[in-house]
Amino acid sequence: MKIGLTEIEDTFAEAFDMSYVRLIITAHDRFWLQAAVQEVTGYASSVIACDLEAGLENWIDAAGTPDGRPGASILLFGFSASGLASAVPTRVGQCLMTCPTTAVYDGLPGTAERITLGKKIRFFGDGYQKSKVIDDRRYWRVPVMDGEFLVEESLGVESGVGGGNVILQAATKEAGLAAARRSVELLEGMEELITPFPGGVARSGSKVGSRYKGLPASTADAYCPTLRGRVESRLHKDAQVAYEVVIDGTSAEVVGEAVAQATKAAAGDDVLLIGAGNYGGKLGKHHFHLHPLLSEMD
Amino acid sequence: MKIGLTEIEDTFAEAFDMSYVRLIITAHDRFWLQAAVQEVTGYASSVIACDLEAGLENWIDAAGTPDGRPGASILLFGFSASGLASAVPTRVGQCLMTCPTTAVYDGLPGTAERITLGKKIRFFGDGYQKSKVIDDRRYWRVPVMDGEFLVEESLGVESGVGGGNVILQAATKEAGLAAARRSVELLEGMEELITPFPGGVARSGSKVGSRYKGLPASTADAYCPTLRGRVESRLHKDAQVAYEVVIDGTSAEVVGEAVAQATKAAAGDDVLLIGAGNYGGKLGKHHFHLHPLLSEMD
Amino acid sequence: MKIGLTEIEDTFAEAFDMSYVRLIITAHDRFWLQAAVQEVTGYASSVIACDLEAGLENWIDAAGTPDGRPGASILLFGFSASGLASAVPTRVGQCLMTCPTTAVYDGLPGTAERITLGKKIRFFGDGYQKSKVIDDRRYWRVPVMDGEFLVEESLGVESGVGGGNVILQAATKEAGLAAARRSVELLEGMEELITPFPGGVARSGSKVGSRYKGLPASTADAYCPTLRGRVESRLHKDAQVAYEVVIDGTSAEVVGEAVAQATKAAAGDDVLLIGAGNYGGKLGKHHFHLHPLLSEMD
Amino acid sequence: MKIGLTEIEDTFAEAFDMSYVRLIITAHDRFWLQAAVQEVTGYASSVIACDLEAGLENWIDAAGTPDGRPGASILLFGFSASGLASAVPTRVGQCLMTCPTTAVYDGLPGTAERITLGKKIRFFGDGYQKSKVIDDRRYWRVPVMDGEFLVEESLGVESGVGGGNVILQAATKEAGLAAARRSVELLEGMEELITPFPGGVARSGSKVGSRYKGLPASTADAYCPTLRGRVESRLHKDAQVAYEVVIDGTSAEVVGEAVAQATKAAAGDDVLLIGAGNYGGKLGKHHFHLHPLLSEMD
Repeated sequence: MKIGLTEIEDTFAEAFDMSYVRLIITAHDRFWLQAAVQEVTGYASSVIACDLEAGLENWIDAAGTPDGRPGASILLFGFSASGLASAVPTRVGQCLMTCPTTAVYDGLPGTAERITLGKKIRFFGDGYQKSKVIDDRRYWRVPVMDGEFLVEESLGVESGVGGGNVILQAATKEAGLAAARRSVELLEGMEELITPFPGGVARSGSKVGSRYKGLPASTADAYCPTLRGRVESRLHKDAQVAYEVVIDGTSAEVVGEAVAQATKAAAGDDVLLIGAGNYGGKLGKHHFHLHPLLSEMD
Repeated sequence: MKIGLTEIEDTFAEAFDMSYVRLIITAHDRFWLQAAVQEVTGYASSVIACDLEAGLENWIDAAGTPDGRPGASILLFGFSASGLASAVPTRVGQCLMTCPTTAVYDGLPGTAERITLGKKIRFFGDGYQKSKVIDDRRYWRVPVMDGEFLVEESLGVESGVGGGNVILQAATKEAGLAAARRSVELLEGMEELITPFPGGVARSGSKVGSRYKGLPASTADAYCPTLRGRVESRLHKDAQVAYEVVIDGTSAEVVGEAVAQATKAAAGDDVLLIGAGNYGGKLGKHHFHLHPLLSEMD
Repeated sequence: MKIGLTEIEDTFAEAFDMSYVRLIITAHDRFWLQAAVQEVTGYASSVIACDLEAGLENWIDAAGTPDGRPGASILLFGFSASGLASAVPTRVGQCLMTCPTTAVYDGLPGTAERITLGKKIRFFGDGYQKSKVIDDRRYWRVPVMDGEFLVEESLGVESGVGGGNVILQAATKEAGLAAARRSVELLEGMEELITPFPGGVARSGSKVGSRYKGLPASTADAYCPTLRGRVESRLHKDAQVAYEVVIDGTSAEVVGEAVAQATKAAAGDDVLLIGAGNYGGKLGKHHFHLHPLLSEMD
Repeated sequence: MKIGLTEIEDTFAEAFDMSYVRLIITAHDRFWLQAAVQEVTGYASSVIACDLEAGLENWIDAAGTPDGRPGASILLFGFSASGLASAVPTRVGQCLMTCPTTAVYDGLPGTAERITLGKKIRFFGDGYQKSKVIDDRRYWRVPVMDGEFLVEESLGVESGVGGGNVILQAATKEAGLAAARRSVELLEGMEELITPFPGGVARSGSKVGSRYKGLPASTADAYCPTLRGRVESRLHKDAQVAYEVVIDGTSAEVVGEAVAQATKAAAGDDVLLIGAGNYGGKLGKHHFHLHPLLSEMD
């Protein structure tokens, strides 16, 4: 299959069940909102060694937030609900409670499975914190220097899909970077997903295992241009670079659609081949086959 | 002492010896450079619960970097060299090695005390990594999908000063936020320092200890407007908000100068009082007294 | 007040609300049971830097365990339920699932607040795990090399009291060690509590705060014999050593009783003074005053 | 090949380069020495999720220790020197500095590559710590309640071999457990190695990867008796259990010898088959082939 001159590999992206939470963050104005989002979504590219994978889902106009201030929706993906229960409150405490004027609401209020957020953060109030219930949702008000940090007691946890991906190969670094950015820009306009890597893109793709004990992942040698000839390569013969757009979404449908859209957006001049990363289908439960997904788009 | 109508408290900022490293990051263009900086400096506001405190020191023109590409200088502060030895390689691995096109150089090459960086990250290469020595500095080339991630073997560690601060009190939230931003913008133009909190500012000031075992810090109740009357307050009677500009710098001289400049920049309309946070002088080795520092400025 | 020649200080132990879980561990025989208990309660002296505080509550005869095998009851204390939710499953996975023949049951099955255990550990089964419900309690059976690791889905979390303590001062190291051991041996015979430090005793008592940023606790200088004259000492003039018996219990009543019993057991020849550690009463909610507690014992 | 009735598989144990340090711990008497060793070697079975792998190498008579008190030699293995640099000081601070009467010496004083120990722990002294140099080795004396905690400034790091192993299969649980204990008891008499799992034995053998994102290891299904018929099994048709004796040693020679000795000791009645765990030879650098190793023993 081809999109223009770009060959589309007959392969699939292998993705995993993950758990996620959604935070609705509001702030006094866009400056502090952006500072908050930047801090809370940093150092969150991959659960291989980060505590979680995070990113901006979308900005929300003041009219659409619980307190009538500018807002943002953030998705945070972890291996399990327990992992999120551990990571999220610390991250929120350090990155959002610290940030002038912010408040934090649950973006999945109707969900039955829950982890604690404000219930843990409230201890920072050293006994002066207070709770209040509005419309059956409990919030904590933790005294801070600009008034109170309002934070919802708990967060709904839903099952999502992590590690959806597209791997593009290009004849030049410039063409590869441009293609990756086209994909990410398109995905930024979609809801229900994030692209957790820096700028939305990973260039250090990994395989499971390594020759070193205690290092569970190592470089995807099959995609490394400098290792051609030394390993069984999966690179196009003229490819100088490969980039991976990684997608975490709230459902398999969302991720499948995103994989298709990202593929289509990446195709173009000097983009030689677009495929996807998988582990032979043995690990992740979700398999996104590029050819049928793209055929359905028409 | 007064600056215009703003009262300057006769007090001091108490700051601590910390260890720091400096990373010089380069990338193909400003887009990826910024993505890298944003990822690697996120979730790094305070060593109370983050692995380190990080921020941008300054952008570097292509002409001034080791490889002639656009660059940035980043400072990362930790409690000790050992703490940095643990935190920095993981953070660089997840945030910079992953980011398209980046390379990482030591910004303190002449320093004797060193922690490993590339020497640890190289294992990701699964045996395919290579080292090279240029001008007595050893680098690792780790194969990745867009070529090789070049990363210096080790980083110099120097002793710096963390937790320098100014606490401003304002009659309105708007005035307080504007004052905090004036301070941070001025500090952004200075080298040898960072302001690690979101947007450079903390609104959840903390005191040592809490009534809960295992929680080593809790809200600075004396600065919480909602706790007036319940605790011994340090707030001006008309203050509605307080904000803390936190400064980590490479020396006491740098931090002292920054404290003075930040104070001067913050003063203004509806900024009632500017002081600083301390622990009675018993904890941190460095005491930055506002009055003499401001007097020396003239 | 005196017990024999030992002076009892008119002071109080200051202790904290903590959260705890109770594990009932069973194994094929006492050898593996002991190996399991030793592994799972190691590196668990203090939440200052350990993930939790753990210890043996008591051994259980085969007749008294859910599966008719020899058993042990273990208590694990954390700062909050969220902290335990993060720490306990990893610790159980590495220390008990690995250990030949063990099974793990919840020791607080009637408790409403719960954290996940088997629900998280089950993922190790890589899809081959199975759950079963017996008497309204859900268990996971994770396939391992000697059959299945049976582990309860969740654990009840209760509120307990941590950091109860007695500090004894002695004229010689030998007398101090002997006194500490008398206390711990007596406490070993009591249920509903643990003594989480090595051999039940801490010799590196700590105070809140330090002169180094990011180090939330440092040596209790007032109790260090080598610092007499340099700091305000709380040591008896003839004391050469001080030891602290630290007690975590399931309620304030239990800890109060234990503090009294430990004090009484420690008194003896060359034990000059017995007091307790506190922070002026400002931090921990629970204050165990030695004099009234000892008076009530008679 | 057979040892008595026990079949020895023609296979190999695949092991890894690891880094290790050796601690020499001394204490006032055997009671506190054992408490210290138990605490510091707990929760240290596998670097899959523990901070390191630890175990007792051997007890040392008072005549053979630096300070003439009873001692123990402990080995701690990590993935890299950096990993040990992070994990060891925290563990020693919580498990040994806390323990009455202990002192800690480097067991690899002649080694050039070093990580900090006392240099980091000294901060607990809050400024009252002192250093002294004896025979070119620097020590820190940190004031504690029973005098001073003496701890060497740094530790030598050497390259060792981790994950050496023998997997035995038995017709009954009792036979399997007895065989595993025979192996471990024999290994306890050998120096230069540890068996880091509880009681020296793992029953939850693992394979690389899993179907869940972020879970880098999962059950070794091929060795699970309950999964026979559902997966490609490596179990003997009559085996009811399998146990793995895991060995970390200071060199390939040591681990090879240990693998051979452990195999020989495990062989016996109702022990049907003894093999070893590997990953097809693709991951670990060290391959210990059972047949030649056993042949060389005679």
